[in-house]
Amino acid sequence: MRIAVDAAGGDHGPAVVVAGAVAGARRFGVALLLTGAEADVRRALADQDTSGIDILVEDAPETISGDEQAAQAVRRKPRSAIAVALDAVCDQRADALVSAGNSGAVMAGALLKLGRIRGVDRPAIAGYLPSMTGRTLVLDMGAVTDPRPQHLVQFAQMGSIYSEQALGVARPKVGLLSNGEEPSKGNQLVQETFPLLAAAPGIDFRGNVEGNDITRGVVDVVVTDGFTGNVALKTAEGAAALINATVRGRLTSSPLRKALAALLQPAFREARKELDYAEQGGAPLLGIDGVVIISHGRSNERAIASAVGVAKQSVEGDVPGTIARLMATLEPIPQATAAAG
Amino acid sequence: MRIAVDAAGGDHGPAVVVAGAVAGARRFGVALLLTGAEADVRRALADQDTSGIDILVEDAPETISGDEQAAQAVRRKPRSAIAVALDAVCDQRADALVSAGNSGAVMAGALLKLGRIRGVDRPAIAGYLPSMTGRTLVLDMGAVTDPRPQHLVQFAQMGSIYSEQALGVARPKVGLLSNGEEPSKGNQLVQETFPLLAAAPGIDFRGNVEGNDITRGVVDVVVTDGFTGNVALKTAEGAAALINATVRGRLTSSPLRKALAALLQPAFREARKELDYAEQGGAPLLGIDGVVIISHGRSNERAIASAVGVAKQSVEGDVPGTIARLMATLEPIPQATAAAG
Repeated sequence: MRIAVDAAGGDHGPAVVVAGAVAGARRFGVALLLTGAEADVRRALADQDTSGIDILVEDAPETISGDEQAAQAVRRKPRSAIAVALDAVCDQRADALVSAGNSGAVMAGALLKLGRIRGVDRPAIAGYLPSMTGRTLVLDMGAVTDPRPQHLVQFAQMGSIYSEQALGVARPKVGLLSNGEEPSKGNQLVQETFPLLAAAPGIDFRGNVEGNDITRGVVDVVVTDGFTGNVALKTAEGAAALINATVRGRLTSSPLRKALAALLQPAFREARKELDYAEQGGAPLLGIDGVVIISHGRSNERAIASAVGVAKQSVEGDVPGTIARLMATLEPIPQATAAAG
Repeated sequence: MRIAVDAAGGDHGPAVVVAGAVAGARRFGVALLLTGAEADVRRALADQDTSGIDILVEDAPETISGDEQAAQAVRRKPRSAIAVALDAVCDQRADALVSAGNSGAVMAGALLKLGRIRGVDRPAIAGYLPSMTGRTLVLDMGAVTDPRPQHLVQFAQMGSIYSEQALGVARPKVGLLSNGEEPSKGNQLVQETFPLLAAAPGIDFRGNVEGNDITRGVVDVVVTDGFTGNVALKTAEGAAALINATVRGRLTSSPLRKALAALLQPAFREARKELDYAEQGGAPLLGIDGVVIISHGRSNERAIASAVGVAKQSVEGDVPGTIARLMATLEPIPQATAAAG
């Protein structure tokens, strides 16, 4: 298996991405295809121990910046790292793409070059948050900011399949993110989606869940629009950063505290690891006819390495094929109902 | 100054609310009007030291449950604790209402009995989150799940006034919650609201902010729809609870760790206090022609006491009057623009 990695993507530059890709390839036993400005990639590779790892490099001199108009960028720049890597997946010279680049461009490129799975109207980014009981899959994390009710139903179906297939959760419980548990709660989108989910085949729908239920772990899959999902994830990240900074400040406010806290470092490290366990370094773009893993622009070496593992898992579990088979067996959502949304 | 407190509201029953109200009255030097089933309120009062506090009790035997249809409940139950307390504010026998009851019923009752400030189309719940630089006001927290762009502009104006008037922030910076910083980011509502905010008088608009910016404290006021605001707040609460449980678990996993952690208890307490500083125990319902403070159903004694302080501050700062004066000076948002939303 060969994983294509967009070496030009990410805020930290090719050195970090290449180091992460090499570490991931070694850990998960996969081959690599690195795309990016060839000189940069080769220079970054020279700093790594690549012995025994099968690595191809493909030159992709065109760059797509973070704020570039996504859909146009990929069309206009066929020699960008994202486009070249997607071509490789398309031609089956690589089995999956990992990119920490402009996520809009990755999504647009994936739609353009790999296409949607039949029965899926909108692909969704499926990310994890840690929970009291393990971890919770949340989708969409930002692909579709204004979905319709029937899109959320498809998110629920794809999230269930991913949770079951790639992660071994038997009959995943699905919740609809809302501002209250009662079926009457929610904005218009949620209120229209609730009855569709309650009647949808292929999922175990447990009703509305609230923001704090994500980390409580009451369901396995939380469905929401990409705007709310993105805001919720980032707000949680912000809360964690604030708590971390505040506690650290108090634990280092005197020499005695510093000394005691130093003795407790292993405990804090364990807690951090427990919370990070859910972090996969990359979130699959579900609904695309191929394996595409979107990593955070801020991804460090460890995150990229972990994303390579997520990619491998999705390829091995044939997540796109499983979604395609299940969507084919499902009745399409009746247009009358869908139009009501 | 007399604060009306809905003694029947809240998940913990009258004893907790009454204890909190009495503690708040003592701390902030205000008189109380307690509404609820009189026998219950008197029984709860008997357990408190009420010496030197001016307390009136008004019987309100009808109960509104948490899941009752809000608008109807208040109309149909004029002898409920919420309705009786709002009547007292209306008749100026009390200066403000604090309620931890059915928030939908409080909002519906406030609209019915106190009315909206002229120029405000939708009242909003304004709550605080702690931040690296102090605290960030977020509105709306759940009053309006599907606002229009012009409603968000009014939220920005009311939030600015509250931040300035009740909290002494000079020229508060306002951000629009979105899934990216660029003006092109956001769902349809956010994209339509951005240019209106950029052109709106009376506010210092700084563009889009992301979820993690709330706790980073880059702006003083974050504007969002009530659905997203509610989900974001609860997701942050959930993240905090998970971190707390995880760290506690690791710090108590051996007798040595327990002993070391016990020595650091003051540091953890300080951190918690620093993070709780932002918690006001109650969020003002801005846009209503009167002071109405909505407390969480889960409010404990401390939260209710603190909410009494928030009420006092809003009365002293004449928040409703200040909003009314400012809204009167502002040009109404042109209907053509408003209709585009």
